[in-house]
Amino acid sequence: MKVTIRNAVREDMPEVLQLIKELAFFEKEPDAVEVTVAELEDAGFGATPRFQCFVAESSKGLVGMALVYFRYSTWKGRTLHLEDLIVTESMRGKGIGSLLYKRVLEHAQELNVKRVNWEVLDWNEGAIQFYKRSGATIMDDWRPVAMTKEALNKFLEE
Amino acid sequence: MKVTIRNAVREDMPEVLQLIKELAFFEKEPDAVEVTVAELEDAGFGATPRFQCFVAESSKGLVGMALVYFRYSTWKGRTLHLEDLIVTESMRGKGIGSLLYKRVLEHAQELNVKRVNWEVLDWNEGAIQFYKRSGATIMDDWRPVAMTKEALNKFLEE
Repeated sequence: MKVTIRNAVREDMPEVLQLIKELAFFEKEPDAVEVTVAELEDAGFGATPRFQCFVAESSKGLVGMALVYFRYSTWKGRTLHLEDLIVTESMRGKGIGSLLYKRVLEHAQELNVKRVNWEVLDWNEGAIQFYKRSGATIMDDWRPVAMTKEALNKFLEE
Repeated sequence: MKVTIRNAVREDMPEVLQLIKELAFFEKEPDAVEVTVAELEDAGFGATPRFQCFVAESSKGLVGMALVYFRYSTWKGRTLHLEDLIVTESMRGKGIGSLLYKRVLEHAQELNVKRVNWEVLDWNEGAIQFYKRSGATIMDDWRPVAMTKEALNKFLEE
């Protein structure tokens, strides 16, 4: 089956949200997705775009996506963050993830950023080996930290 | 000594860069800082601002800083990332880090973001305990991944 990688358009967001929900299920947090199609449309294609999205399209519709945005490293300067790279389960193992990954890295090269960053679950051995083989580094001694809106409201009230 | 937290201005960037270099030394990567004052000025105060910076100022000059920017979570929506929170060594233990931390969380509350994220070194026990006490979560099963410009150029050449 022919699969094409292209820039996402606003009309892709319903299918993109389905892919996001599928990834959350895979990562064992099926109820974590709170964003809506309207929010994705606004964040991606509104007055202040907050991400850029690439999609993998087959004759059956969208089968994968990658979503990126800029970050800023105080050591290196402008960098790109890969928030999600998703291939729908029935289409895995066909090289579509590699096509999306390559497109993201080409995009980073076009933008001339200093680095690309993302995050991986420590039990996702297949992904870790794929990333290492491609030349990426797993930063084993760093941990992401998150504070929810509810937690910070509580902290500031005290 | 009186310390005030305020928004950084362009003229603060030389002192901010000194603080960035001090943090890199503390994190055992003294040669990792490649950004220049001119780059920080452009990235913070140019046509496309890529971060917002808060500084802690005493009569001796800047003694700390915190630097943040937006990210986008495909699960939650717009979030804030805390890239650096630095207090100069001679001024640690006086509550200045807490003042900067609180200012960042107030900023997040004003912006109504869904979450604040940052990263911590797994050996920095003091910081980890401080973050946990404040209501943040250490995401123990996630690892940051990085691919340098050089590595991605090599990958794309192959």
